[in-house]
Amino acid sequence: MRDAYHEELDSIGDSLVEMARLVGSAIGRATTAMLDADLKLAESVIAADEKVDDLQRDLETRAIQLLARQQPVATDLRIVVTSLRMSADLERSGDLAQHVAKVARLRFPESPVPRDLQATLLEMGQLAQRLMAKAAEVIITKDIDLAMQLEQDDDAMDLLHRTLFQHLMDDRWKHGIETAVDVTLLGRYYERFADHAVSVARRVVYLVTGDYADEIDPAVAAAADKDGTAPVEGR
Amino acid sequence: MRDAYHEELDSIGDSLVEMARLVGSAIGRATTAMLDADLKLAESVIAADEKVDDLQRDLETRAIQLLARQQPVATDLRIVVTSLRMSADLERSGDLAQHVAKVARLRFPESPVPRDLQATLLEMGQLAQRLMAKAAEVIITKDIDLAMQLEQDDDAMDLLHRTLFQHLMDDRWKHGIETAVDVTLLGRYYERFADHAVSVARRVVYLVTGDYADEIDPAVAAAADKDGTAPVEGR
Repeated sequence: MRDAYHEELDSIGDSLVEMARLVGSAIGRATTAMLDADLKLAESVIAADEKVDDLQRDLETRAIQLLARQQPVATDLRIVVTSLRMSADLERSGDLAQHVAKVARLRFPESPVPRDLQATLLEMGQLAQRLMAKAAEVIITKDIDLAMQLEQDDDAMDLLHRTLFQHLMDDRWKHGIETAVDVTLLGRYYERFADHAVSVARRVVYLVTGDYADEIDPAVAAAADKDGTAPVEGR
Repeated sequence: MRDAYHEELDSIGDSLVEMARLVGSAIGRATTAMLDADLKLAESVIAADEKVDDLQRDLETRAIQLLARQQPVATDLRIVVTSLRMSADLERSGDLAQHVAKVARLRFPESPVPRDLQATLLEMGQLAQRLMAKAAEVIITKDIDLAMQLEQDDDAMDLLHRTLFQHLMDDRWKHGIETAVDVTLLGRYYERFADHAVSVARRVVYLVTGDYADEIDPAVAAAADKDGTAPVEGR
């Protein structure tokens, strides 16, 4: 019985990784659709989000069944509850990738992004995709050092977001209001996507160290076991 | 022991209602701070969000302790898990109220909202506050009909959001890019705030009817017991 239990726990972890991979791919493809004004690609990203939603619903059902049947305590209980929250982060990330694709679809056959901002938005899109790939790896490896890298990547995203705003606020802005609105929302979607990836990594750190910090504290990370062993009890 | 258990379950519900009341008040005060360019009020909204965050952390700790100690099954288990998710919605709503206040602070001593949009944003702010008040009432009463009202209110919010966009896209827009960016983000914050209030109501419907619909289905609502009795089992 305990074996079936740990199998089910592992399969919940697998679903989280699968979700992270799907939404990481979605943000990459949404970025391409946005920059290249590729309607088909945008449509495929929009349609694919259903898979992520299905995975989340399925994960939620299995997690609740696991709680009901196996009644885990201590660390195992925290893993299940935290998995539920991570799945919510990942589901929301999928929505945000879908939002990017919807802006691309709305402005087809033009790109919503003017040429002089394409490089910045490409960088935001690539960074978002990398953040999610790292979040997936953090779920798998429980590597606290890698989780800390996500904080730095998120700072880089904030910097790109500020660059975008500087362009918008520049008196020489010549792309009009519609584009300003699109770029404002797109910037927000990437920033929020990054926040959710960071949130996933922080929740893994919480599981490993028992310390839920608003930011991952380097001291806490240094003190944590590198192999990701969770303390027996925690809060 | 069972009595202590139900007391604790009730106290989790009380915390959710308290959170909803705090964030409902926060969005109302943030709206006033934004329209009146009231820096002190904006600061107080920004500072008050910590209380909401504390409540959520505390609720989460108590919910996990409850799961560990009492190992609820069936409906009780669903209540605890759903409460965790509702608390996440409410915590995020608090962040959004704080975001509105931060825009107000950023543009002080001006209001970020031009005069011809003040009425629309006032309406969005009031609607957001009403939505959250209703969400709190739905948590208390488990009234499915009231939960359905939130769907309609959310449609009204979407309509206001579209009105805002029509203003932005109008060729006669004369408020410049900075204001367009502010108004775009403010509109988004209110829309998301409303989404979270609706999400809270939907989760209550899920608890009562066992049916997790993306939209609350009138047929499901009609079939559900008016007194909010949950089915013994469900999925």
